[in-house]
Formats: sequence, C-alpha cells, structure tokens
Amino acid sequence: MEEIKARLANDLYAKHSGMELVSLAAGQASVRMQLQPFHRNGLGGVHGGAIFTLADFAFAAASNSHGPLAVAVNVNITFIKAPKGGVLTAVARELALNPKLGTYTVEVKDEPGDLIAVFQGLAYRKTEPPREPAKR
Amino acid sequence: MEEIKARLANDLYAKHSGMELVSLAAGQASVRMQLQPFHRNGLGGVHGGAIFTLADFAFAAASNSHGPLAVAVNVNITFIKAPKGGVLTAVARELALNPKLGTYTVEVKDEPGDLIAVFQGLAYRKTEPPREPAKR
Amino acid sequence: MEEIKARLANDLYAKHSGMELVSLAAGQASVRMQLQPFHRNGLGGVHGGAIFTLADFAFAAASNSHGPLAVAVNVNITFIKAPKGGVLTAVARELALNPKLGTYTVEVKDEPGDLIAVFQGLAYRKTEPPREPAKR
Amino acid sequence: MEEIKARLANDLYAKHSGMELVSLAAGQASVRMQLQPFHRNGLGGVHGGAIFTLADFAFAAASNSHGPLAVAVNVNITFIKAPKGGVLTAVARELALNPKLGTYTVEVKDEPGDLIAVFQGLAYRKTEPPREPAKR
Repeated sequence: MEEIKARLANDLYAKHSGMELVSLAAGQASVRMQLQPFHRNGLGGVHGGAIFTLADFAFAAASNSHGPLAVAVNVNITFIKAPKGGVLTAVARELALNPKLGTYTVEVKDEPGDLIAVFQGLAYRKTEPPREPAKR
Repeated sequence: MEEIKARLANDLYAKHSGMELVSLAAGQASVRMQLQPFHRNGLGGVHGGAIFTLADFAFAAASNSHGPLAVAVNVNITFIKAPKGGVLTAVARELALNPKLGTYTVEVKDEPGDLIAVFQGLAYRKTEPPREPAKR
Repeated sequence: MEEIKARLANDLYAKHSGMELVSLAAGQASVRMQLQPFHRNGLGGVHGGAIFTLADFAFAAASNSHGPLAVAVNVNITFIKAPKGGVLTAVARELALNPKLGTYTVEVKDEPGDLIAVFQGLAYRKTEPPREPAKR
Repeated sequence: MEEIKARLANDLYAKHSGMELVSLAAGQASVRMQLQPFHRNGLGGVHGGAIFTLADFAFAAASNSHGPLAVAVNVNITFIKAPKGGVLTAVARELALNPKLGTYTVEVKDEPGDLIAVFQGLAYRKTEPPREPAKR
C-alpha cells in the first residue's frame, strides 16, 4: 500500500490539478479537490475535464490498491449537474475483480453532498497478481 | 463563431493544461497539446485525465460551434495505447444533431499519427437554436 | 403507475425474449428472465444482447415510472462474468432526475446472486412533467 | 473464417431475433435485420435491446474474425433517432487491436440510410493469437 501511495503522490497531473488522496484501502479510494480559478471552463463552471480527472484519480488509486499495476482501458462518465460550494470529492468502489480486469464505480459529490457525476471504469491489470508463497 | 472562440479562449482549465484550439468549423474542431512534465501520471505516462480533457475540449468546441450553448452530459472514452512523441491532437466530428442533443466522436492521436484514444460524447443543448427572423 | 405497467406489458421484444416485470416503484424497477436455449450465443453462453435487453427493460420501467415518457439516449454496459444457474435478475435504480434527463444504474445478477453486468443509462424525458394543479 | 461463420450461424439469440450476417472480413462485419412485430417496444417503436443486439452481433463477428476467441467486456451505445423503413443494418469496423484487447465502432442505419445508433465496443481476447509456425 505504501508503494501505491508513493506512485499516486508522484502523479504530476493530479498535483497540477490540485487533487489529493484522502483515503485508500483494498478496492476503494477517496480523493478531493479544492476548487480554484484554473478549474473553470469558458462559461465559468467547473470543467468536465477537471471532474473527470478527479474521478479518474480515485479510480486509479482503487484499481491499483491490490498491488498489480492497473491501467484504465474504458471509462464512461455522466455529468449530472453543476457543483455548488468549493470542494469536490470522488469516492471509488470496486464492483468486480478478476485476474486481468477490474470494474469500478466512482461517485463525485459537491460540498453540499449532491451527486455531480457518476463514472464507471474498467481497468486492465498489466502484471500478474503475486502468487502465494509455496507451502512447505 | 467569434463568440464561441472567445468562450473557448476563456477556458481556464484547458489553458492550465496547455491545450490550444487549432481549427473550428460547424460541427467540427481540432485541438492540440504539447506534452509537458505536468501531464504525467505516477508511472511517467501521459495521464488519462489529460487525454480526456484534450478530447473534451475538442468536443466542447464542436458541440458549441452552432451557437446554442451545449454542455456535456455523457462521455465514453477508450484508451488504446501509450502515446509516442511530444504532441497530442484531438479531432472532433459531429455524428448527429437534433434540437436538444448532439452526438460526437473524437479521435486522439499521437505525434506519429497513431490512435491513442477514442471518445464518444453526448451534448445537451441548453438554449434553443436561434429562430429564423420573421418574413415580412 | 397502471398506465406504465400496461405499456411495459405491451413490450413485444421483452416478451419475445422471455422477460417479465417483477416490481415497479418511483425511480426503481426489477425484472427477471428464465434462461432458455434461445438466449444462447454461438459459444453456448448467455448472449450479451439478452443481458443488455434485460437490463434495458428494467431501465425503461424505472425511467418511465414517474409518468412522463422517457427514452434511452445513452447506455454503457460492462460485462463482468458468465452467469451461473437458470435465472437472471436486473434491478434498476435512479441516481438523478431533472426535468429533461434521468440517470440510472442497473445491476444484473445470476441465480447465485453474483454480479454479471453493470449498466449505466441516461434517459431523455420527451414530455414535460405534469404541472401541479393551480391553487384555488 | 469458416469456423467463425459456423459459430455465428449457431448464435441462437441472433437467430431468435431475426438477424443475419451479410459480410465478414478481417476486423469488419455487416449484419441486417428485417423488422418484425416482435422487435417493438411498448410504444410501438423499435426496441433499444433489438438495436443493441444487432450492433452487438456485428461487433462479435468483427472481433472474432481474426481467429482468437473474443468476448465483449464493455459497450457504449448512443441512440440517435427512431428508424424508418423495414430493415436495419449494422456495420462494425476495428479501430485498434492488441494481443488482449480490441476496439470497435459500429454504426446502425435504417432503410433510408440514416444513422440510428452508434456503438463503441471493447473486446477481450481470451485465447492467445496463433503463433506463426516455426521456420525450418
């Protein structure tokens, strides 16, 4: 878990976008982002790319939490409404895991706790899960 | 078209992420991004959030190109392979348009021209299309 | 609710595919399908189209449960594993609703209760919600 | 190619739904469906599940065209408009292929040739591609 935390701490685009890891456990993660002027789109709203990146950061954390390296292969995101308040939170939860693929859902909420976006992610696990040590 | 260009030039997250509009026409747009260290994820690859944001910027440009304000309601993105070279390009194309919804596909390519990601976006048009002036 | 039940009972492709409505309430629905030989694909497994159609039937029921006519505009489905046993069940739940769009998630489970597929659906509401009667 | 054609001919749900393979080549396929009363939904339109299943059949054909067994892991479909005429056609095209995953796009058109739905599919290849025979 420390190795994956170190990898996430080294995520430069998440850092550039002002995102931080709040919690990490097997198959789940939560992250947050304090809204800043650079998160805005041309209409003054929060940019869909920033909302996606926040959700994706939670997804990356959860899908890598087991050790084997996991990369996103497909994501579907539905944007529900404009956020209120100054903080967005994303919580990722694992729905299913097999040796090569993992399925995750991420909910993004605003400061009052309303659902802003839902995100469904599929991760491909590039390295084999560690084998159990041989019994003696 | 100038009004939408002004709105896109005011997209602070796209600017923060180093993205620029290359071309804009009715129902289509292309954008580009020079890769920089802050686009990297924790593994040193290009961040999925940065690739998404680039494609989303092209989608926003194309879906707003007709005048009425359009917002993203759903996006599906498939990440195909790690990019090579120093520049990513995204080209958005309109597949269908009706008064309230527009459907777009975006292809993201790397510098050698290989397909890196495909993005399918659905936009909701918030304002009614301008009516034709009454005949006299 | 009786009008929507009558409409669902008149769903000929769901009937042709052996699907039946189990329960219906505001924003939620469950449906089931007894597996039959015609549900099989060329490899002898349950066809992805049959799994989709079952989930879509639950989504249609839930999204139409409020009265205004709702049609599917986008669906994302992830197929998790091959089902076991002879019955599939799909449960749809509303995540968000506004005057024009509704967001739903559907879980498809097999007879032992394992998650077989997750489905995220976006519905467009074609008719306006009924107005409240004028106060006197 | 004959083996995959035999497998597709044995697809019982596609047969039950009145779908037929029109053409098959490496990475591409087209299929068609003559509309019948059982394809209707509760409103008298063509059922989204039938449209999905048609597109999925083309996707299955194209993704299995190379030999190794491929199964759908994720599909995104956008429904664009109600079809006209009595025949629907779906054409699948491969966008990318690597040893374990393939990415496909499918267009569904009605008899006048209008785009009815777009489908983006991700297939997982369960068996390894056949190795080239050793040189002598």
